[in-house]
Amino acid sequence: MNTPKPVSLNLNVRGMGLSATLGINERCRELRDQGRTVYNLGLGQSPFPVPHSVVEALRLAAPEKDYLPVRGLPALREAVAAFHRKHDQIEAHPDGVLIGPGSKELMFLLQLVYYGEIIVTTPCWVSYLPQARIIGRTVSQLAANHEQQWKITAPQLLWALDMVQDDYRPRLLVLNYPGNPSGQTYSADELEELAEIARRFEIVILSDEIYGQLHHQGQHVSIARFYPEGTIISSGLSKWCGAGGWRLGTFCFPPNLYWLLDAMASVASETYTSVCAPIQYAAVHAFRREVTLERYLWHARRILAALGREGAEMLNRAGVRVHPPIGGFYLYLDFSPLSARLAERGIEDSSTLCSHLLDETGVAILPGEAFAQPPSELTARLAYVDFDGARALAASENIPLHEDLPADFTRQWCERTLHGMERIAEWASAEA
Amino acid sequence: MNTPKPVSLNLNVRGMGLSATLGINERCRELRDQGRTVYNLGLGQSPFPVPHSVVEALRLAAPEKDYLPVRGLPALREAVAAFHRKHDQIEAHPDGVLIGPGSKELMFLLQLVYYGEIIVTTPCWVSYLPQARIIGRTVSQLAANHEQQWKITAPQLLWALDMVQDDYRPRLLVLNYPGNPSGQTYSADELEELAEIARRFEIVILSDEIYGQLHHQGQHVSIARFYPEGTIISSGLSKWCGAGGWRLGTFCFPPNLYWLLDAMASVASETYTSVCAPIQYAAVHAFRREVTLERYLWHARRILAALGREGAEMLNRAGVRVHPPIGGFYLYLDFSPLSARLAERGIEDSSTLCSHLLDETGVAILPGEAFAQPPSELTARLAYVDFDGARALAASENIPLHEDLPADFTRQWCERTLHGMERIAEWASAEA
Repeated sequence: MNTPKPVSLNLNVRGMGLSATLGINERCRELRDQGRTVYNLGLGQSPFPVPHSVVEALRLAAPEKDYLPVRGLPALREAVAAFHRKHDQIEAHPDGVLIGPGSKELMFLLQLVYYGEIIVTTPCWVSYLPQARIIGRTVSQLAANHEQQWKITAPQLLWALDMVQDDYRPRLLVLNYPGNPSGQTYSADELEELAEIARRFEIVILSDEIYGQLHHQGQHVSIARFYPEGTIISSGLSKWCGAGGWRLGTFCFPPNLYWLLDAMASVASETYTSVCAPIQYAAVHAFRREVTLERYLWHARRILAALGREGAEMLNRAGVRVHPPIGGFYLYLDFSPLSARLAERGIEDSSTLCSHLLDETGVAILPGEAFAQPPSELTARLAYVDFDGARALAASENIPLHEDLPADFTRQWCERTLHGMERIAEWASAEA
Repeated sequence: MNTPKPVSLNLNVRGMGLSATLGINERCRELRDQGRTVYNLGLGQSPFPVPHSVVEALRLAAPEKDYLPVRGLPALREAVAAFHRKHDQIEAHPDGVLIGPGSKELMFLLQLVYYGEIIVTTPCWVSYLPQARIIGRTVSQLAANHEQQWKITAPQLLWALDMVQDDYRPRLLVLNYPGNPSGQTYSADELEELAEIARRFEIVILSDEIYGQLHHQGQHVSIARFYPEGTIISSGLSKWCGAGGWRLGTFCFPPNLYWLLDAMASVASETYTSVCAPIQYAAVHAFRREVTLERYLWHARRILAALGREGAEMLNRAGVRVHPPIGGFYLYLDFSPLSARLAERGIEDSSTLCSHLLDETGVAILPGEAFAQPPSELTARLAYVDFDGARALAASENIPLHEDLPADFTRQWCERTLHGMERIAEWASAEA
């Protein structure tokens, strides 16, 4: 028995690397350790600290040690339901809320328990497809493009659903808006049109609204308003509350879909059990959204809006196509106008594009390929969050919220990110 | 399209309830709400508070908001490796440590990524088999019994492995000691014998030592000492640190098995991402085990030992067969000596036994069936943790650690649990 035993791994898992966003983070750390100046515009983490009152709530709850109910602390489920009732104008009920260790884990559980076709719109968030692969499932894709602002259209959805001669086909559509990687979002009219088609085919919608509260004008609308009976809203603390590392996500189900909630809770009880107790107590405070939290959010939005607009303008001038962002903190760059020149340098896919960029400018951004785009499409996601959010917030607080930020605000407080964007713009101009 | 669409659930998940331990907890809450006196000896949660210094460490770390590396905070991986080097006399390295949101989640990931036969010894912890079912796998079982103290023997293991004519069969053996539900543990000699067989067949051992630090004499030995190259040690904060609700588990791999660690980290990056950052910082402190923590542990062990011994004696006198516990906080009761009388009352399986007990005595314990025992075996697990651990600890601290606790200590400080055990003893005596 001296021959080494062959490695015994599930084929669905074999050969997988790290999630692309987490991978880029670890690569930047390595380059920095080598003494290089690196602009990490790869990882999509909120630049802002967790609001002080929420941190204090965690400190108060630190001794909480009991296993909490699988579905979540009742007070938190109530706070989350109230949050959705208020912000989304739906009849959310605490019984319909499920708390998980990040909405990513909840999406995995949903894919695991659901039996039916799963449809995602592309470009899409990095983890939907690898999750399906782990479970051993294929996913249908609905592709959007720059011209349609990386959003699917109602006729496109209708065509995709209608094409299959199977009226009762169980289907789950994943929509994410404001979008990662797009930074774009659907208007209320667009959502209403999509909702009508969804209702006609009785599909389930997983509405990933993790960036909803970071709509730059505070005008996020959920598709649940138009299709409450078939929509699950996904949210959490990671983005609007700056608490990505705390790992708390929420799903809100309508009574029609409690069978999915029940199945997910069963699997949760055999896997993560329940979410960290002290974090759940602190989250009650966060979801109640008292006035200091609202103020924090408006400052965060104002900073993100200014920086995103400035970056988009700068990059457009340099020949990169990009829509100014409407929510969140991403710019989705399309380098195709430069394709001829890039091809001369051997840059013909998004991964090569991004490694050239990192080597030549020190700026890390993620290739479109990570978001399920065809490798040859020269797109990439820029997360404009590499600045000290606490300092920027403090500076913004000196300027009344009804005023615009002064023109030099981003130069003064978000300099690192601005530098990174300028380096890309210079690089692109040289190619043009 | 007015016919309701049939529910679309993964068949592996359909019809699953809550994990049995969590289910009993929720049932007890209901009965209490109805005004009944309930002794919850069902859920296996440490009765002791999280040590003060660990709670303080969490408070200090409350503002930590970044996504931490998937495998865990480097300082924590170092602390966990150092912990195993010191306690288990193995060459644990931080590169071999994986941090997860509870060891339950890590076990699920291990079952998910591993391709090969999984063998568990029964009676076993409630979640191994449901996890396999969710993934769509079957698990082989090796049954122990009361006479062999609910432990498998080396000849038994040899027979099971040798029976299959497949020398290179990939196999993963799950061992759990001190055992849940048994309260028993393997001696160093027994582990050495099992290790030798494991080495001969090159099997992977998942050694679930979550109760290791609650060995009542502080004399826990890991099988990794005898089979380091093939053993993964599972541990966490839930039991010895009283922090079940904090959700932090650890796996420690030898270099030989880094391929399993790598695959688990890939899946982790697409599911839970990383463990709650503030909790990881606090855990560094816990795993460093400074002197106040050692003291806390010795008091906890002394109380658990006294109460377990007393309960076992009392129940044995009442005609229930039970071994005095060696670690953890469980008594595994065997009512078979009373089977004739119980049968007259229609009690012929462990679930009926436990619901009669709950109705007639107000004491909740878990049926052997939940631990993968044949339904007709009249066994049940009693968790002797329904008392105020903080008060009991404070009282124990007044008595020097080298002395025994006074005879009336448990009566004074663990009264609720003692009452529960007395009620079962009375009930059993009436049946005898």
